[in-house]
Amino acid sequence: MLTFRRIDQADARLLIEGARERAKAIGVPMCIAITDESGNLVAFERMDGGKITSITIAIDKAFTAAAAKKATHEYSAASQPGSPAYGINSAIHGRLMVVPGGLPVVVDGEVVAGIGISSGTPGQDQDCAQAGIDFFLAQR
Amino acid sequence: MLTFRRIDQADARLLIEGARERAKAIGVPMCIAITDESGNLVAFERMDGGKITSITIAIDKAFTAAAAKKATHEYSAASQPGSPAYGINSAIHGRLMVVPGGLPVVVDGEVVAGIGISSGTPGQDQDCAQAGIDFFLAQR
Amino acid sequence: MLTFRRIDQADARLLIEGARERAKAIGVPMCIAITDESGNLVAFERMDGGKITSITIAIDKAFTAAAAKKATHEYSAASQPGSPAYGINSAIHGRLMVVPGGLPVVVDGEVVAGIGISSGTPGQDQDCAQAGIDFFLAQR
Amino acid sequence: MLTFRRIDQADARLLIEGARERAKAIGVPMCIAITDESGNLVAFERMDGGKITSITIAIDKAFTAAAAKKATHEYSAASQPGSPAYGINSAIHGRLMVVPGGLPVVVDGEVVAGIGISSGTPGQDQDCAQAGIDFFLAQR
Repeated sequence: MLTFRRIDQADARLLIEGARERAKAIGVPMCIAITDESGNLVAFERMDGGKITSITIAIDKAFTAAAAKKATHEYSAASQPGSPAYGINSAIHGRLMVVPGGLPVVVDGEVVAGIGISSGTPGQDQDCAQAGIDFFLAQR
Repeated sequence: MLTFRRIDQADARLLIEGARERAKAIGVPMCIAITDESGNLVAFERMDGGKITSITIAIDKAFTAAAAKKATHEYSAASQPGSPAYGINSAIHGRLMVVPGGLPVVVDGEVVAGIGISSGTPGQDQDCAQAGIDFFLAQR
Repeated sequence: MLTFRRIDQADARLLIEGARERAKAIGVPMCIAITDESGNLVAFERMDGGKITSITIAIDKAFTAAAAKKATHEYSAASQPGSPAYGINSAIHGRLMVVPGGLPVVVDGEVVAGIGISSGTPGQDQDCAQAGIDFFLAQR
Repeated sequence: MLTFRRIDQADARLLIEGARERAKAIGVPMCIAITDESGNLVAFERMDGGKITSITIAIDKAFTAAAAKKATHEYSAASQPGSPAYGINSAIHGRLMVVPGGLPVVVDGEVVAGIGISSGTPGQDQDCAQAGIDFFLAQR
C-alpha cells in the first residue's frame, strides 16, 4: 500500500487567489484550473473575460503538470522538431499540453497538485501559475 | 443582432456558496459546476470527498441545463422507455445528462447560467442545485 | 492537505491472481483490470480467450468502482427505467459502467483501488471481482 | 483465409518482466503495455511511481508499434516538419504515437505483439522496450 498527500479545497482556493491577483495586476483575465496530484479537477475559475477555448486548455495544462509531474514548458522544449519527445503534444487525445502555463505544485518534494493557466501569452500564463504557487506556499 | 445577459464570476461564487452550504448541511461532499448561458464552464468546486466521476457529471449537468434551457430531471421524465426523447442521454458524446441535479438559472425570464451538482443521490444533487439558485437570487 | 492510501503494484497482482483463479475455476477467460483509488489503471490482464470488447469494459468498470466509490451493480439497480439515476450509463463519454463486475476495494473503510472484470455474464464478472478482493484481503 | 500467430498471456508476462528489470536497473519506474498483433491490450503494469499520463501513452505506443508494424521512433524521424509523414502524430484521435518507446515484437519475421513504454526519457523508454523483447526472445 502506498501513502500520498494531495491538496484540499482550501489549498486550491489559495492557488487560485495567487494566480488571479497576478492576472489582475497584469490586466489579463485568465482561466485558472487546479487539479489534485492524479490530475483530477479540484477547482476552476474563469475570470470575467477569460477565453472559452482556455477552459479546456487550462484544465489540461493542470492535468499534464500533475499527472506527468512536469511543467508544461519543459515539454515545450523537449518536443520541438528534432527533439526526442517531438509529437507528444497530441498524446492522450490532445490532453498532453506542451504549451507553457502548467506547473506541478510541489510540497516537501512531493507533487500534491497541478495548476494550469490560459488566456494570455504562454509567458503570462506561466507567470500567473507561478504566482499561484508562490502565494500558496507563503500561506502554509 | 442579439443582446443577452450571463452571470459573472461573482454570481458564480454565490451559486456555489448556496449549493455548498446545503451540501454541508446534509453531510454530502459534492462536485459543483457553474456554466454561463452558453454552457461553458465559469466555476467549479470539488468539495473534499466529492467523487471523481462526479467532476464530469456535474459539469455536464450544468452544460445541459444551460444549453438546453431545461432542468436535467425534465429530461429524465421525457427520456424513459416509450417516451419521445428516449435515448437522448447518450447524445453529444454522452454529455446530455438526464439524471436530476442540473438546473438552468433564470433571471427575469432569461436563462443566464446553469448549475450542476453530483456526488449524492439524484434527489440530493437537485436539492443542492436549487439551494444554490435560491441563495443567488436572494442576494440580488 | 489530505492524506490517503492507494494500492501498489504488488497489491494489484494479488487482486488479479484471485480473480484469475476464480475465472479458471469456472472456465471463463476474463479481462481483469485494477485501478488505483482515483480510477487510473495500475494493472491489466487479458486471459487467453478474453474478449476484445472486454478490454475497455473491464478498465471502465474498475474506473467507475474506484472513482465513484460504488459497485457497478449498485448503479445497475439505481439506473433502471423509472429509477432516479436512469440514463447515467452514458455519462463520462460512456465510461460510467452500470453493468455488474466492478467493485471498489476497501481497506479500513477507505477505497484504495477498483477491480473490474469482463468477458463472462455480469454475474460471473462480479463473482470473479469479489474473488479477487477476497484473495487480496486474505493475504494482507 | 489467413492464419496468424499472436502472443499469449505467458509471453506478455515475459515481455513485461524484461522491461521491468531494465527499468529497475536504470532507476526509472515505468508504465509497460503489451498488445497483441492487432494492437489490442493483453497486459499492462504501472510500476510504483510510473506517471499517470504514461498509462495512455504506453498503451498507445504498443498499439502503434503492433498495428502499424513499425517502431514509434521510425515515425519520429518520418514525421518531422518537411518529411512525408509530417502531422501523422495526431492521427487516430492522437493514438498514433511518434515518440520513441514503442516496438513491434517480431518472431520468425512476423509481428506477433507490440510493446510500449513510458515515464522516462524517450531514449530510456525505447531501451526498456528493447530489453523486454530481448528477454522474451531469450526465453523461447
